[in-house]
Amino acid sequence: MSHDRREAGFKRRTRVAEALATLLDEVDPHGRAESVPLARADGRVVAEPIDAPAPVPSYDRAAMDGYAVRAADTFGASDRSPAVLRAADAEADSIAPGEAARVHTGSAVPDGADAVVMIEQVETVGGGDGGAAEIEAFDAVAEGENVGEVGEDVAAGQRLFEAGHALRPSDLGLLKSVGLDAVPVSDRPTVAVIPTGEELVQSDPAPGEVIETNGLTVSRLVERWGGEPRYRDVVTDDEDALAAAIEGDLDADVVVTTGGSSVGERDLLPEVVDSLGEVLVHGVALKPGHPVCLGVADDTPVVSLPGYPVACIVNAAQFLRPVQKRAGGTTADPFPTRRARLARKVPSEPGTRTFARVSLSGTADRAESGDAEGGGNAEDDGGDSALPAATPTRASGSGILSSVALADGWVVVPEPREGLDAGEVVDVELWEGNR
Amino acid sequence: MSHDRREAGFKRRTRVAEALATLLDEVDPHGRAESVPLARADGRVVAEPIDAPAPVPSYDRAAMDGYAVRAADTFGASDRSPAVLRAADAEADSIAPGEAARVHTGSAVPDGADAVVMIEQVETVGGGDGGAAEIEAFDAVAEGENVGEVGEDVAAGQRLFEAGHALRPSDLGLLKSVGLDAVPVSDRPTVAVIPTGEELVQSDPAPGEVIETNGLTVSRLVERWGGEPRYRDVVTDDEDALAAAIEGDLDADVVVTTGGSSVGERDLLPEVVDSLGEVLVHGVALKPGHPVCLGVADDTPVVSLPGYPVACIVNAAQFLRPVQKRAGGTTADPFPTRRARLARKVPSEPGTRTFARVSLSGTADRAESGDAEGGGNAEDDGGDSALPAATPTRASGSGILSSVALADGWVVVPEPREGLDAGEVVDVELWEGNR
Repeated sequence: MSHDRREAGFKRRTRVAEALATLLDEVDPHGRAESVPLARADGRVVAEPIDAPAPVPSYDRAAMDGYAVRAADTFGASDRSPAVLRAADAEADSIAPGEAARVHTGSAVPDGADAVVMIEQVETVGGGDGGAAEIEAFDAVAEGENVGEVGEDVAAGQRLFEAGHALRPSDLGLLKSVGLDAVPVSDRPTVAVIPTGEELVQSDPAPGEVIETNGLTVSRLVERWGGEPRYRDVVTDDEDALAAAIEGDLDADVVVTTGGSSVGERDLLPEVVDSLGEVLVHGVALKPGHPVCLGVADDTPVVSLPGYPVACIVNAAQFLRPVQKRAGGTTADPFPTRRARLARKVPSEPGTRTFARVSLSGTADRAESGDAEGGGNAEDDGGDSALPAATPTRASGSGILSSVALADGWVVVPEPREGLDAGEVVDVELWEGNR
Repeated sequence: MSHDRREAGFKRRTRVAEALATLLDEVDPHGRAESVPLARADGRVVAEPIDAPAPVPSYDRAAMDGYAVRAADTFGASDRSPAVLRAADAEADSIAPGEAARVHTGSAVPDGADAVVMIEQVETVGGGDGGAAEIEAFDAVAEGENVGEVGEDVAAGQRLFEAGHALRPSDLGLLKSVGLDAVPVSDRPTVAVIPTGEELVQSDPAPGEVIETNGLTVSRLVERWGGEPRYRDVVTDDEDALAAAIEGDLDADVVVTTGGSSVGERDLLPEVVDSLGEVLVHGVALKPGHPVCLGVADDTPVVSLPGYPVACIVNAAQFLRPVQKRAGGTTADPFPTRRARLARKVPSEPGTRTFARVSLSGTADRAESGDAEGGGNAEDDGGDSALPAATPTRASGSGILSSVALADGWVVVPEPREGLDAGEVVDVELWEGNR
């Protein structure tokens, strides 16, 4: 009840999806790009479509250890009636009909050969130190068998990545394999992180003072999400000081503030953003953290996060992350999840998207646990019984930093639901990502 | 069939869980630690248990905007019969019985007060420029109401993190909030990455030559997994050269090689590792990638990955990652997953753990899609119908780098299963982590 009185300051609370769409409408990719060596490109966002300049493999390659042959020469060969072939030189560039050349997995198939007989299917006959004089092939091979043709893996000119793709380690290997040594990527988006609040200090708080933490946490999230944070000094609750701080950072791709985003008399951010540009959304139907303010000034999105640590983080994940990603030329993937069973019920109000912090237990590494059933991948194999338990860390209290720091992730209760029941199978969002 | 012939070289193929357990038995945490500032500690592993030196909050703080009061003074107050209190100075350190002091969310509650009446429940009476002379409180408050007591969030001395915890952005905020500015963390484990193979070149491959990619990919994975890679030059297929290369890196916490780990005549790694120390496991029942060799030399784990790019990556994820994590003082969490529906069946042999690369479609960011039902969190809400489709990228071919680079993750078929059916709901492992 008391809660409703406090929230009455918001005329309307916009749904999360609508609020985000409204903000994203105002955000364009910054369009700056640079070329970076592959070894330093992990996690970066591809700036333009990339086609393979060369094929992989770049030659017809043996897919097995054995002998390169003309397939036609092995026609009818069997265990009881091998095909007999002359052994060519080991390093031969080409073979004549009736010849066979020793090849290793990955080596070039000589001209004239169109298949490889596996070494296990071959016996060598005669010959001195220089190798076999003849070989017997006990199996027939078809044209192309055990041969990887030029371009089998990647064709020359093949589109490898579209602009906006976030590069991963295996992508870098693929790019190198086609002969590239650098890649054009979007500059990391710059994100100014401005903590606000006259009560904030960096250390040794007196009564009434609080150590600044939101700016530190948000700066590190910006980094994890691929951006370059500018972690600014604390700005006090003064309209001119706040306006000056934001204006000074409008050359950044995104400006984010923490604190002062609600409707109290010290909540100056909405007014300040309005004076510099436009407030698009103030108050969102999510919990914890409805008093977020989303605006734009000089074409730069300004995300004003609430000061309560948990509310700050929830809103950063919902709004700052996708905005920052779009500014940097990509889109925000859904958070990875882990499936778990709720240990207790989670209450929520219909119409509000609720983020319930949970800790996971019983999540021993599957491979390490030695439990062969532990894959639990398909639902019909009974794997659900092995699911970890998701225990809500606290029922409420958006000011409780420890409840989020000590949680493994959160469970989202979508707007139409009125809470989740104990025992329900849920996807826990690992909003701080993989380790 | 041909496949079986080739694999016959392995007398026995050890199950994944057993192979990993055998290797991990030989690995001890390196035990080296350093103190790093919080701003640079994201992702690092806590080296020793950390207790809070100071409580949060460090003073009794107002949880709401309003007036600090003695709860007893509001007894019986209601809309029709308010309690009338004298207004104390706004900055008063203490109040007397019958007084009320203006407080803001987060500010200190003065001595003598034990509750806060919300501003919405108060009307001010009289007073000049200096503020109200009296206030009327229209609601009774209980002792402690709307007050956050000292240590409510974190008690002084409370254990915050155990050794081995991998720090996340919110953890850094929590550590800062208790007055810390640096944190003791384990040194990143050093991992020597040695690509091997006489066919490997760094660029411009001639026929029979292949561009080195495994070392690049594995080095970046090592980094993502919290380690410090030493990406070495290619070593050719020569026992002495291989032994010298490995020996030169036995001061690293882990040595990993790529290529030459099978049973062919050019597969020298098992022999070389045996000459330097001990081969623990050679040949694992997983696909793609069974020809992995796990050993130890001079107490340093030596992981010899197969040269086929996909097999290399699968084995790196299964063996290198947990070994590296343990060396660095932590454990490998399960990979994050995304739930999806298989678009096609995935074949597998019972007794072998199979990793089927899949690409995901229909995974638009939930918030962005504007689909309020999209949370799909609880299974009974019908959310499964909105699951993304997981399409296997190729049925086989462990040499096909593009099949893994172009995949979003893999589906694990556990040993007891004989394939997965089209339409099954599966957990796709995002083995390259979150973006």
